[in-house]
Order: sequence, then C-alpha cells, then structure tokens
Amino acid sequence: MKLHGSLNIRGNDLFIGDIKLHDVAKEFKTPCYIMDENLIRDNISRFKKSFGENNVIVYAGKTFLNSYMVKLLKSENMYLDVVSSGELFIAHSNGFNMENIVFHGSNKTPEEIKMGIEFSVGRFVCDSLEEITLIEKFSKELNKKMKIFLRINPGIDAHTHEYIKTACIDSKFGISKDLNKIISILDKYKDNENIEIIGLHSHIGSQIFSKEAFIDEVDEMIYLLKEIKTKREDINLLELNLGGGFGIYYTEEDSPTSIEEQVGSIVDRVKYNCEKFNMKIPKLYIEPGRSIVGNAGTTLYEIGVIKEISGIRNYVSVDGGMTDNIRPALYDAKYECLIVNKASFERNYKCTISGKCCESGDVIVKDALIQEPRRGDILGVFSTGAYCHSMSSNYNKLLKIPIIFFKDNELKLTTRRETLEDLIKLDIL
Amino acid sequence: MKLHGSLNIRGNDLFIGDIKLHDVAKEFKTPCYIMDENLIRDNISRFKKSFGENNVIVYAGKTFLNSYMVKLLKSENMYLDVVSSGELFIAHSNGFNMENIVFHGSNKTPEEIKMGIEFSVGRFVCDSLEEITLIEKFSKELNKKMKIFLRINPGIDAHTHEYIKTACIDSKFGISKDLNKIISILDKYKDNENIEIIGLHSHIGSQIFSKEAFIDEVDEMIYLLKEIKTKREDINLLELNLGGGFGIYYTEEDSPTSIEEQVGSIVDRVKYNCEKFNMKIPKLYIEPGRSIVGNAGTTLYEIGVIKEISGIRNYVSVDGGMTDNIRPALYDAKYECLIVNKASFERNYKCTISGKCCESGDVIVKDALIQEPRRGDILGVFSTGAYCHSMSSNYNKLLKIPIIFFKDNELKLTTRRETLEDLIKLDIL
Repeated sequence: MKLHGSLNIRGNDLFIGDIKLHDVAKEFKTPCYIMDENLIRDNISRFKKSFGENNVIVYAGKTFLNSYMVKLLKSENMYLDVVSSGELFIAHSNGFNMENIVFHGSNKTPEEIKMGIEFSVGRFVCDSLEEITLIEKFSKELNKKMKIFLRINPGIDAHTHEYIKTACIDSKFGISKDLNKIISILDKYKDNENIEIIGLHSHIGSQIFSKEAFIDEVDEMIYLLKEIKTKREDINLLELNLGGGFGIYYTEEDSPTSIEEQVGSIVDRVKYNCEKFNMKIPKLYIEPGRSIVGNAGTTLYEIGVIKEISGIRNYVSVDGGMTDNIRPALYDAKYECLIVNKASFERNYKCTISGKCCESGDVIVKDALIQEPRRGDILGVFSTGAYCHSMSSNYNKLLKIPIIFFKDNELKLTTRRETLEDLIKLDIL
Repeated sequence: MKLHGSLNIRGNDLFIGDIKLHDVAKEFKTPCYIMDENLIRDNISRFKKSFGENNVIVYAGKTFLNSYMVKLLKSENMYLDVVSSGELFIAHSNGFNMENIVFHGSNKTPEEIKMGIEFSVGRFVCDSLEEITLIEKFSKELNKKMKIFLRINPGIDAHTHEYIKTACIDSKFGISKDLNKIISILDKYKDNENIEIIGLHSHIGSQIFSKEAFIDEVDEMIYLLKEIKTKREDINLLELNLGGGFGIYYTEEDSPTSIEEQVGSIVDRVKYNCEKFNMKIPKLYIEPGRSIVGNAGTTLYEIGVIKEISGIRNYVSVDGGMTDNIRPALYDAKYECLIVNKASFERNYKCTISGKCCESGDVIVKDALIQEPRRGDILGVFSTGAYCHSMSSNYNKLLKIPIIFFKDNELKLTTRRETLEDLIKLDIL
C-alpha cells in the first residue's frame, strides 16, 4: 500500500495535506474524485526537467480532462494532445493556446479536421494518407498551412508487461513502417502550400514498465529517420514524437520506473543513436497522461450494505462503482483502498468492494484488505486519476460524480455532481 | 444474419418499414440509435399473452430507458423495474404509475429508499435485512406501508450458456437460501405496520438460452415457498418474482428459445409444482429487458478511414465506438452488421469494424463480413437496443448519440445528440 502525493495518515485519519478526507466526503458528499494538484504539478515539473528545455511534454487529454485541468495545463505552459472535437472544444473554450495542441485520432471526421484547421492547432497526428488529403483540402479552402506528424506503426507492442515486437502490425493506428510508402507520402507533400510534414510519431502502448521497450522504439524511429535522410537529403523531419505509455503504481504488483529514469533513458538513447548515425537530434515530444494524473486521483465512497457469506466471501458495497471506474470490469485493473476514517487501524478484513450497479461484474477491488468496515464509513480508492472520470457513464442512471481539486490545503469544486434533472436534459419531452 | 422486426431489404437498400436507413442517417446524422417501436410493442404483447393476464411483466429499465420509453411502457400498462433514484426519477417525471414500480438495487442509499417511499412505489426488492430495517424506519416516519419482495439467491448461476448451480452463492445479490434465516425475517415483519413482505424474488443471470435453468429456478423457489408454508401456515407469500435473463439472438452463434416457449415453460412448471405440493399458485412476475428491446435497436455509423494491412487485417473505422457500445470491449459481445446503402450486395469483404476512440480495444465487430466499403457508406449494427445507450460514456469526449424511435413509418427523435457545449455543462468555469 502506497500513499501518493499529499496523502498522509495522522491519528486515525487519512488526510490530503492538512484536510481530513472524511471531511471532504462530508462537505462534497460521496462518491467524488479528489485530484491532488500539487502532485500533478510536481509530475509535470519532473517530466519537464528530465526531458530538457528544447523538448516538449504533451499531456494526453483523454486520460483526464475538465475545464480546470485545461487551465492548469495552460498555467504550466504545457502542450495538450486531443483526440476529438470534444477535447479540442474544451481546450479552446478555456483559452488554451491552440499552437500547443497536438490533434490525434485514427478516424477524425471531416468536421473535426475543419475545426482543427479553423482553430489553427499546432500539429495534427495523421494515421493515413486519406486523412492528410482531407487536411490539405480544407487547409487550402481556409488558406492555412498545417503541421503534421506522420504516425508510424513501429512494430512494437508494449501494452503488456512482456512487450512483443511485430505483433502490433495488426492495428488501426499508424502507417506501417514501409520506407517506400513513407517516402512517397513525404515526396507528395514536399513544398506543399498547405501541408508541412514536420516529423514522425509513434506510440507503443500504455502502462509500460519496461525501459527496453521505449529504447527499442527510439532505435526503430531514429533508424527510420536515418533511412529517410539517406534516401532524401532534402527532406527535413525536425521533430520526433515518441507517444506515451509510462506505467504507474496501482498496487504492489507494479514496479514502475521513475519519471526521471524513463525519460532520461529515452533522451540518452536518442542522443546515442543520432551520434551513431551522425544526425542532428530532432526536437522530441512525449505524451504522458496516466503518469501525470493517475496517482493524483482518489475516489471517496460511502460504505453501505455489508454482506458476509460465511466461508465464501464478504461483500462491502459502496455508493459508486463501474459508472465512475470501469477499469476493473474492463481491464481487470487493480486498486488499493482503505477506510479513510480508520486509516491507522489494522487492515485485516478481507472483502470484495462491490459497486452499486445491478451487475455482478461491478467490482472495484477484488480481495481487498481493509479495516473492519461499518455502514457510513468512507472508503478511499487510490490512483483513480486516469481513465476513471474520462470513461464514466450513467449506467443504471447513476449520476456522474464531482471532481474536487486539492491545492496548497485548499479544495476547489471544478466539476459539479450531475443532478436527477440532468438525466433527462437530452430527452425530447 | 437476421433482420429483426421492421428491417427489410428492397433494391440496394436496407429499410426500416418503408424508410431507407440511409435517409435516416442523412436526416439525423451519425452515429445514432434507431429503435423499432413496433417490435418493442410486439415483444411486450407476446410476453403478456404467454404469461397470462393475472401475471405481471416488469420491464428492466437498466437495459434501455429514456423519457419516451417510459411513456411507451405506460401506454402498455407495463410494470417497470428501476435500480436507482435516477431511473425512478425518469419514470416519475414522465407520469409513470408508481404502483407499477419494482425498486431493485443491492445497495440502495438511504436517500433512494426515502424517495421510493415518498413516491409510494409499488414494491421494493430487498437483498438484505439491513435494507428492510431502513425501509421500515423511513416508512414509519412517512406513515406508509411498503410492499417488499425478499430477494433470494437461488444457488443457480446461468450467466453463461452452461449454467452452474451453487456457483452464485458467491454474489452480492440476494439473501442466501437459508430457511431459518428467511423465516426469521418473515416472522420479524409479520403484522408490521409499515412493511408487508408479499413474496420472494430471484434472478439467475442474463442472456440465458436454457429453459432448464429457468425450470430449476422455479423448482427451487416453489419448493422454498412450500417449506415456508409448512413451517408457518399463517404467512402468506402471494407473489413470486422470477427475474429476467431471457437470451436473444445477436449472431448465428445464438439460438434463443422463443418468448412463448420460455415463458410458457415457466408458467407450466409453476403450475406443476404447485399442484404437486397442493399450493395456491402465486401471482407471478418476470423482468425481461434485453428480450423486449435488444433486437429492436440498430446503430447507424458512417464509415471513415479504411486501412488494409495486406495479409493481416482490414480495419474499417466508424464515427462511433465503445462510447455508444462498450459491450464488445467489456463482454466480448458479438454483433451482426451490414452497409445499409449496399444491403443487397454480396458481403465478401472481411474486416474489423473499429471505433473512433484512441484505444486498440475499441472494436465493434471483429472479423465482420460486409459489402465492399467506401468512406461515407452507412453501416448498420443490429440488436443494439440493450445495454448500449444505457452504458454509453463520453470517453475521448465523444458526444452521446441521439435515439430515434420508428413507429408505423414515422420517425421521432426522442433523445437529442449531445452538443460540444454540453461537455462542459458540469464544469465550474
């Protein structure tokens, strides 16, 4: 069990900074997400320091995004990776610098592409020639010139602990690593009035612990740049975007490499390769999401029904579930948790934390060890900052839950809880 | 491949009734859900006819619910199973008769219980003594008397094709089938001023094809009623709710039993058991959801990027995905689909229909056989009426998609598409 960032135990209670989490639950009701802004900013600063001033940290918005988060990123002068008109809209309507946007998505609609061009986003990441053609067409109409990363499928799949080379050739993402094909695209758009292909992009997966997988990615991509350079001296690909996927700690099963070590080894390997091939070092981009916000999130639930099936299992029900965190049901994801108002008590009660939905698969933590629970206790589930809010639903017509940011011992409600009335706001009555 | 309800092919096109689905896509844009109201009403009528006039069909709201659906159910004089204050609110605000509500949920919050009592819902389904105690307390305060089904865990788990007895003793749902425990609860609430336990409830799973599993359930439950009757002649449990779970056709792998046969065999088996034990036949309830709306839903998508990886796989991307249908990612669920504007063409193009989300798991149909696709074609995915809208999310900040009802050759928008502005409506700016 690890307590991240500002979480700490004093007396019987779990605190965030100097604030009792039990008081947070009383004030904002449960369930709710608390985001530790100090930890988020600290992670950003560690990424920036390790990656170097000339290189760019792009936050992956799909991990977690609301208006407040956009403003936070803006104040850190961060770049933002968006994957839809929705994410782009949230960034734009909160005054985010459009030059710092990297617009992803393997199947952007024509409307999304137009919106990106109208907003003058800094860079598009393109998975197909088909998309570049669309961008060219709309850029011409709007009299703009758009910068593009060509997304390459590097043939490395590191979604799992044991990463696999070649397997991910079978992917909807990226252009296959076929030199002639890539060069034909580069040739086609050389000196184009509306398109500038400024570099290559690759992404090898998510929740990756292995430094070696990233090193292989760097090797593949720099070698590709070298091959292109050899064939076309006049084509300058000045930027290299290596994507994200840095793994974090959820439970004791996870042994992530530190931000400094992961990022440091990438930078070193790029240098090593560029020296080897006598190439100018490209401007580097990485796109962390989970590793910036994952550990910063805590979900607070109130415990309700406790069902003890003798000799089989104890079920401890909470007032949220797969609607605010579908990762256990979807990916068999694991989390740590404890009762925040009994944080110092011994954790000797084995149970399954089950959600409120009418669905047996609605489990938050299987075989958790928590303190002896009672109805009304507040359970904290840790490291819920990534892909919990962003994947949340209204299944069982449960209400979406609020997001509270913690910063320097102050709490700020940044997204309110849905109301019952909100549930029918789209219905034509 | 099966076309359900009002779907039919004429010329090159797929129609719903006399309306081209391609025209529906043009009018309402994609993605969107079309619900075949004629088929829904037909299914309801088949359930009612097979189950008999004295028995009650309760529609399971968690399957699919919006305001229009509530009104449809009301016009059919149906009962409705709700599992949260949210579902109850939608029913109540659309004038649904509260006497016809069956209020489920293994961990109802005190607020939800109060709301149910204030609204005078017809019946609560209770999973624990703890909850009955809460209902009693609030009923007393509000000077009401509430009817309760005791939910029993019958020790049968039929979630899979091969159903397993005993396995589901390990469940958050229901009170274990312990006669003494059940009788102690019945004794406790005999002649209570605020609580009337009117019967037992059980539910054995979902998407069940086996008649035998339901027959086993009936046997277990009637035997339990008999045992109770033997021990307590003065306790009258007049109602028996056998839950839902009737399987439907998604693909050729599924061979569901007809509504008539499933329901008929339940009714017959109840009679058989009651005669055997010389018991009065209880009033029966069943709670179908999927089998009423599942086949009635069709999702329309527009095809975007087509990526052909030679010798490996073809990816056909659509403009929706796991945000409007998470079942393939969550349950490995399978669907049939075709290009609606080429419905009569040969289906000889093998591909994976991938969604728009930045996630490799965002697949709608793996290894589909469709007509030769082109950007702009409209793809229809069938039998998406159950657990698609209800589990939908805003992942990747995609917008929730509209619901259009088809009835007697008219289309009616019943839930509008979300707008970009809706995405930040809960944010504190």
